[in-house]
Amino acid sequence: MDTDRLNKQLAFITEVDKAKHILRNTILMDASRQENDAEHMWHMALGILVFAEYANKKELDLLKILKMALIHDIVEIDAGDTYAYGKFDSEVVADCEQKAARRIFGLLPEDQAPEFIALWNEFEQAETKEARFAKALDTFMPVLHNYHTRGKQWQKNNVTSDRVLARCSARMAQGSEKLWEYVQELLDDAVKKGYLKP
Amino acid sequence: MDTDRLNKQLAFITEVDKAKHILRNTILMDASRQENDAEHMWHMALGILVFAEYANKKELDLLKILKMALIHDIVEIDAGDTYAYGKFDSEVVADCEQKAARRIFGLLPEDQAPEFIALWNEFEQAETKEARFAKALDTFMPVLHNYHTRGKQWQKNNVTSDRVLARCSARMAQGSEKLWEYVQELLDDAVKKGYLKP
Repeated sequence: MDTDRLNKQLAFITEVDKAKHILRNTILMDASRQENDAEHMWHMALGILVFAEYANKKELDLLKILKMALIHDIVEIDAGDTYAYGKFDSEVVADCEQKAARRIFGLLPEDQAPEFIALWNEFEQAETKEARFAKALDTFMPVLHNYHTRGKQWQKNNVTSDRVLARCSARMAQGSEKLWEYVQELLDDAVKKGYLKP
Repeated sequence: MDTDRLNKQLAFITEVDKAKHILRNTILMDASRQENDAEHMWHMALGILVFAEYANKKELDLLKILKMALIHDIVEIDAGDTYAYGKFDSEVVADCEQKAARRIFGLLPEDQAPEFIALWNEFEQAETKEARFAKALDTFMPVLHNYHTRGKQWQKNNVTSDRVLARCSARMAQGSEKLWEYVQELLDDAVKKGYLKP
């Protein structure tokens, strides 16, 4: 066995344990605490399996979508979580995340690192059908969490329905028209119930 | 869109959020706290991607292995985590987990539930090459955690190296001889460093 190669893989798998400490703005369905990135990547990957039939495009490479889901937030170990409805400079965030991708995936052997970096870039760019469906799920999951916790984080952050609609439209419609339709109904209901400001 | 179908899928994806509350005996690499099932399923799935080359059998169905990793501990929402080196009646645990699988995967539409239950059973039985590699990773990950935390949980639970070796041999060798070889070296080193009792 190539010990140097294995050691690089072990360094990576150990480093990514830190994703379990990166807290997101999303809170768990029972409103008990914030979700972390590891939990989110698992839940999103499972969501991809469960909701695959609602993707706009058929004959998706499901394995590739799962890979994207499993790695997409690892960069936040260095770059931190950026709240979707917060104030941030998207260029600064993108630059910081690119550096993080090079450092963290760069721990892997030199033939594996580029594959992981390419998958992460493909997800970020959201131009392929696989990346678009992954992005749709990445957007869908926190909406479910917000709805189930009666809009706790929406209210805390003064988020209005037009902003949630704009974000979901931009990130969901190209991946899954059907889940996007459902989200519109859910957000209407959230406004009616007072979870989300009109 | 079939609303009844979508509602069943949503009920499942909401229910499994509870896996984020199921604590395992494993502790995080920085020894700060116990790991939960959602975090473990994510980390194990990522380990499968990183270490796939060490599987005994080539031409594995990687998608199937990832699916197994993503669902294998969901039953613990009802059945709880069983500590590998604790005292338990394996028949009682198996029965409890079977019931949990029927209840939780049974929330899904009737064409999806059997697929998830079959995947979970295949993992449990560890007879196919995919299940054996998944099992190898499920065993490998907590060994890494134990080593990195200087055997904290091994010591707390009075675990000796012969028990860890017996368990790893039974659950790793059929899936990955190479990772099993590495684990033997790691355990030797853990004994030398005083992390694990001889």
